[in-house]
Amino acid sequence: MTEKEIHELLSHAILSPTAFNIQNWRFVVVTDKALRQKIRAVSWGQAQVEEASLLIVLVADLMAWNKNPSRYWKDAPQPVQDYLVPAIQQYYEGKPEVQRDEAMRSCGMAAMNLMLTAKSMGYETCPMDGFDFDKVSELLNLPSDHTPTMFVCVGKGIKDAMPRGGQLPLDEVVIQNQFK
Amino acid sequence: MTEKEIHELLSHAILSPTAFNIQNWRFVVVTDKALRQKIRAVSWGQAQVEEASLLIVLVADLMAWNKNPSRYWKDAPQPVQDYLVPAIQQYYEGKPEVQRDEAMRSCGMAAMNLMLTAKSMGYETCPMDGFDFDKVSELLNLPSDHTPTMFVCVGKGIKDAMPRGGQLPLDEVVIQNQFK
Repeated sequence: MTEKEIHELLSHAILSPTAFNIQNWRFVVVTDKALRQKIRAVSWGQAQVEEASLLIVLVADLMAWNKNPSRYWKDAPQPVQDYLVPAIQQYYEGKPEVQRDEAMRSCGMAAMNLMLTAKSMGYETCPMDGFDFDKVSELLNLPSDHTPTMFVCVGKGIKDAMPRGGQLPLDEVVIQNQFK
Repeated sequence: MTEKEIHELLSHAILSPTAFNIQNWRFVVVTDKALRQKIRAVSWGQAQVEEASLLIVLVADLMAWNKNPSRYWKDAPQPVQDYLVPAIQQYYEGKPEVQRDEAMRSCGMAAMNLMLTAKSMGYETCPMDGFDFDKVSELLNLPSDHTPTMFVCVGKGIKDAMPRGGQLPLDEVVIQNQFK
């Protein structure tokens, strides 16, 4: 993939919504061949980690909410800023599970956006979470307040996806109003 | 929105990828007016919860990986089934944080898919996590192994989105190879 295409892809990805506009995702684009090989070794040996055109490790800054948060709302009317900026603090502070949920949720949305954008550009993708999270953190030299969340591999399809088990029926996954 | 449109929207949503094809999302479509009012009351009073055309609560079955998992791979070649079905167990069993991460990740991807599908159908959307997770669980009568993850409200836009703080610059959120 060209630099221009990668730029286009990532420019779309960062339009993904995040709670309170905290934009807590970080997209690690791994191009170094030796590093990709090392990441593959801690990802069950899966070939696409090393061989796909592009390996993007979606990482989240668990503390993005606390890093100069007024900038996330700097263009909003003042009363909105006065209400929302302190609400950010209140939502996340001292709540590691809430911080981690947000990491996974934001990166999930960004990943889907990346995958659909890549598809529209003529590429195939593969989302992955089959890897050793601690070892990937080490290899990427992640700050201690960051976590990997998943990978998205992007490339030209060379064979069809394997048959799996089909979709669950709609009436199993769609619930009307509430569970019985 | 018509039943047909809602069906179209959800039919697209369930094409979202999930790890090991476990399809751990459950889409609670809340149409009961009294229930929507109650959910609004535990969602900081936000009007769209009650007033948008459609309120979808994205819920995850934290134990989907353990519910007859062979069906998720029933159409795959036998050696693939023999490898992957036990791998599902290994990935999730006894790991509540991993189960919860998957809930948020899968629902994040499905939410983005829902939002882009809705947009393509002429609707606007609003993803939300500003609500009391425990109280929403009670109101939806969720089984104890399910959790809400987020809402997506869908409807006709009646005013433009509020200005916020813009996007973070690409060179803050895109990292080459690894953190320095």
